[in-house]
Amino acid sequence: MADLYIALLHYPVVDRNARIVTSAITSLDIHDLARSARTYGVRRFFIVHPVAEQREFAARVIEHWFEEPGRAFDSRREEALALARVVATLEEALAAAAESGAAPIVVSTSARNRAGIGFQSLREKIEAPDGQPIMLLFGTAFGLAAAMLERAELALAPIRGPGDYNHLSVRAAVTAILDRLRGQPA
Amino acid sequence: MADLYIALLHYPVVDRNARIVTSAITSLDIHDLARSARTYGVRRFFIVHPVAEQREFAARVIEHWFEEPGRAFDSRREEALALARVVATLEEALAAAAESGAAPIVVSTSARNRAGIGFQSLREKIEAPDGQPIMLLFGTAFGLAAAMLERAELALAPIRGPGDYNHLSVRAAVTAILDRLRGQPA
Repeated sequence: MADLYIALLHYPVVDRNARIVTSAITSLDIHDLARSARTYGVRRFFIVHPVAEQREFAARVIEHWFEEPGRAFDSRREEALALARVVATLEEALAAAAESGAAPIVVSTSARNRAGIGFQSLREKIEAPDGQPIMLLFGTAFGLAAAMLERAELALAPIRGPGDYNHLSVRAAVTAILDRLRGQPA
Repeated sequence: MADLYIALLHYPVVDRNARIVTSAITSLDIHDLARSARTYGVRRFFIVHPVAEQREFAARVIEHWFEEPGRAFDSRREEALALARVVATLEEALAAAAESGAAPIVVSTSARNRAGIGFQSLREKIEAPDGQPIMLLFGTAFGLAAAMLERAELALAPIRGPGDYNHLSVRAAVTAILDRLRGQPA
């Protein structure tokens, strides 16, 4: 089984007018993504932000659950947030992931992707005994900027329901994608 | 195709000590669940709260996106939130759903369910040409109280990843479940 990593990018992402912006970190994204990462066996969850004050905010949110009273209130939060790492750039996340083995294959996600590798194909890559690690990129705001889509070696097919609308929150999109890649049927 | 409804319950739910509590409505749950509901072709999303002031708060959150400047900022929010209805009780939600056809089958969801109907079986029920409508119940806080689990005619199997941890946020759990019931492969 290949190692699976996720990175939540706050820059470069686009706003509703397709302008490149830097978005703010929200504590809720950190919690929701950490819990989804832990549920689906993700090895590390990277929170990527270029601004030092924003990284310090994220670090404080995470540390709260490793200290009292946060820890006593809900130890399952600690277990999830233990996967979170705060870094300045995607390259830093990739370097940290590569410390425990091969360099990850970078895979972009976007609701606007027209084509891309299918979920079953990527799942098979992950489940291959000698599979290379995978780093999934997720964009906040209105999604990853073109530079990040081009930086990725693979684009993942978009999540679709029965209709045309697929404007999920990033918290929802991460979960649907991880469930398709690592969920166990029941 | 049977109609699919979801209900987000704020009472009766349990806290971390399994005590029955009433939780507060959050605007983020409303937005995330409405977007997931719209993506997966849910017919109506009910926000259930016994306290009138809380229902008024939810109604204001929803209305914001039907008026300027919310509407101009992001019309896709309006499209999603058009599915949301605020009601006092589950019975009220069921009565509203029954107005457009047969009474829905009530299906509980819980990360703690030990058994229950599998996702593929429920998907087949929904896709059956003459299928009865389905109302999925989701609990806020630490999940649905026992009375709600007993009220349901069916219990849905829990979402699982590769390990034992499955403490998803309600926003994530709703999405993973809807994706398994209505997602289109790619």
